[in-house]
Amino acid sequence: MRNVIPVAILVGTLAGGVAWSQTSPKPVAKRAAEKSGSEVGAAKFASNGALIRPVGHRKWVFVGSPVTPHDMNGGKAAFPEFHNVYIDIASYDEYAKTGKYREGTVLVKELVAVGGKSASSGKGYFQGEFIGLEAVVKSSKHFPEEPGHWAFFSFTAEKGQPEIQTAKAFPTASCNSCHAGAQEDYVFSEYYPVLRAAKESAEPSAK
Amino acid sequence: MRNVIPVAILVGTLAGGVAWSQTSPKPVAKRAAEKSGSEVGAAKFASNGALIRPVGHRKWVFVGSPVTPHDMNGGKAAFPEFHNVYIDIASYDEYAKTGKYREGTVLVKELVAVGGKSASSGKGYFQGEFIGLEAVVKSSKHFPEEPGHWAFFSFTAEKGQPEIQTAKAFPTASCNSCHAGAQEDYVFSEYYPVLRAAKESAEPSAK
Repeated sequence: MRNVIPVAILVGTLAGGVAWSQTSPKPVAKRAAEKSGSEVGAAKFASNGALIRPVGHRKWVFVGSPVTPHDMNGGKAAFPEFHNVYIDIASYDEYAKTGKYREGTVLVKELVAVGGKSASSGKGYFQGEFIGLEAVVKSSKHFPEEPGHWAFFSFTAEKGQPEIQTAKAFPTASCNSCHAGAQEDYVFSEYYPVLRAAKESAEPSAK
Repeated sequence: MRNVIPVAILVGTLAGGVAWSQTSPKPVAKRAAEKSGSEVGAAKFASNGALIRPVGHRKWVFVGSPVTPHDMNGGKAAFPEFHNVYIDIASYDEYAKTGKYREGTVLVKELVAVGGKSASSGKGYFQGEFIGLEAVVKSSKHFPEEPGHWAFFSFTAEKGQPEIQTAKAFPTASCNSCHAGAQEDYVFSEYYPVLRAAKESAEPSAK
């Protein structure tokens, strides 16, 4: 039931021309690397351009949770788990005001295994264990060549392995081949009722 | 696909001995009623003992989202929608520290219709429109006779009707006949991975 992303894909090189500077070409301690990195909005980058694992997302704004389980996809679901998706608070507030994703928006997708299919409330899908964490960041500064300036990251470790603390972006095609089909700015807002409601409440002139 | 709770059940009388005082026997303006009410933790009550509709829950801590759709329950699901469940922030912090639900804990269950069953990510269940809001409150002061001192409320209006602003508690049996079967303190924490993780991180001496 677990969906483990191959490690190979996690170390995929970042596609496109990337603008941040390598301030330290030598190996440095993690703390030093973080200090010499950069940040935009809720995203923090190490000096080598890798995204530092977002922290505190469980107190961000939850936006929705689709589930596309194996048993509805011939046993071969591309995403067999629940996806609990969150947006950082400041970006949510901006989106609710303008209907746009601001520079520095971070959306986190926490992967949760299907834990059970029956309870006293009926038959269905119930959330089991956390199995991974992914993120997407919008930054024209960091990702000038990426469509919509969005880049996609995975912090999902193989089972039993320690948490991944930094991640390079996926190659553009890995995620964007689908996300280019989203109704709005490469984010599947249409499946996230909290984002739809926020957009509807945005100032009419801003939409 | 919509699940509209009959209005009759919303005006069910509150079971058990209720301790708050009726400070104003005469009809009063809503604002005055709220002022003469009471509160505990994140819960606010009007002077007649009705719970005032919780506000701001989308910035509370999301804990999980089960779905028990009609098509997995012979077309007659008791709860055919996604249940996006949240806990108020202070009660979450206390739970993460002690592994217990504090006095004044409020959990909100936002009802979201199944909006679609297919997307580029696969076949599954995707969240559609908001269709209701329910809440549960723990208060030994307000609900001394209720099991675990929990009382259950619905703010779900019929389609097209205005938001319900105050609600009386359901009769004990309406909800507790199932919730008594929860593993812990009448809350189905076992289906909410964020609560399970918080409890695991609580101080060992407190669990």
